[in-house]
Amino acid sequence: MPTPSMEDYLEKIYLIFEQKGYARATDVASSLDVLPSSVTKMMQKLDEKGLGVYEKYRGFILTPKGIKIAKDIAYKHHILEEFFRVLEIKSDNIYNEIEGLEHHIGEEMALSIASLVKFFEENPGIKASYLKYRQEMSKQDS
Amino acid sequence: MPTPSMEDYLEKIYLIFEQKGYARATDVASSLDVLPSSVTKMMQKLDEKGLGVYEKYRGFILTPKGIKIAKDIAYKHHILEEFFRVLEIKSDNIYNEIEGLEHHIGEEMALSIASLVKFFEENPGIKASYLKYRQEMSKQDS
Ligand SMILES: [Mn+2]
Ligand SMILES: [Mn+2]
Repeated sequence: MPTPSMEDYLEKIYLIFEQKGYARATDVASSLDVLPSSVTKMMQKLDEKGLGVYEKYRGFILTPKGIKIAKDIAYKHHILEEFFRVLEIKSDNIYNEIEGLEHHIGEEMALSIASLVKFFEENPGIKASYLKYRQEMSKQDS
Repeated sequence: MPTPSMEDYLEKIYLIFEQKGYARATDVASSLDVLPSSVTKMMQKLDEKGLGVYEKYRGFILTPKGIKIAKDIAYKHHILEEFFRVLEIKSDNIYNEIEGLEHHIGEEMALSIASLVKFFEENPGIKASYLKYRQEMSKQDS
């Protein structure tokens, strides 16, 4: 199992590759706010673990195993974003919260969250009564 | 902000203290499955950060600031347990999942989860139709 920070690199490399067709160390570095030398180091580590490989003309690309992990993290990131959105959570820290949570969510919780999002979207009356219920509860707490 | 591993120590020290009235390094070590020397090291670190302190006859105790963080993590652990339970998630890995998630959940998500748990418990019909919806969705995916 890769460490969260390795998963973060995989996720970014995958997203940049999808968008641009190639993933340069400098793009990954600016996107993760780290030094290009750290990216190069991590790319070597990913290579050693069989998750990515340097190709002469295409630069650094992910192997099928690397893509699988990257897609899984990107998917979990996405459904967590949807979950925060449907729950109408307004915190300034949502991005960081999701970046932390995405590495710890298992398959069954991911499915539960994804289906909760859709369930609330298809049942706006239920969603509204839940949001009202939460508001009442938050008043009692404070 | 303490690192997750520091939060884990705080959580355990707090829970052991609540249960026994004192928290010895050996009890914390066996509970976290680490060496007593690691616990002693962390206790020193907590002391430096003003989160805990050695007292002559009572041993290591948490300061009010340490208790606040520990209670927050223990609370998030608890509501995550409730969330997995009410969603009827059966994974073998739930404890580890919760141990990872508890450090990344913000206040608003914590309230949202706690209220979702209560909302489902007070509305068993809605819970049942959600679980049915999730089952349908999982069939489509596979
Ligand atoms: Mn992410
Ligand atoms: Mn815990």
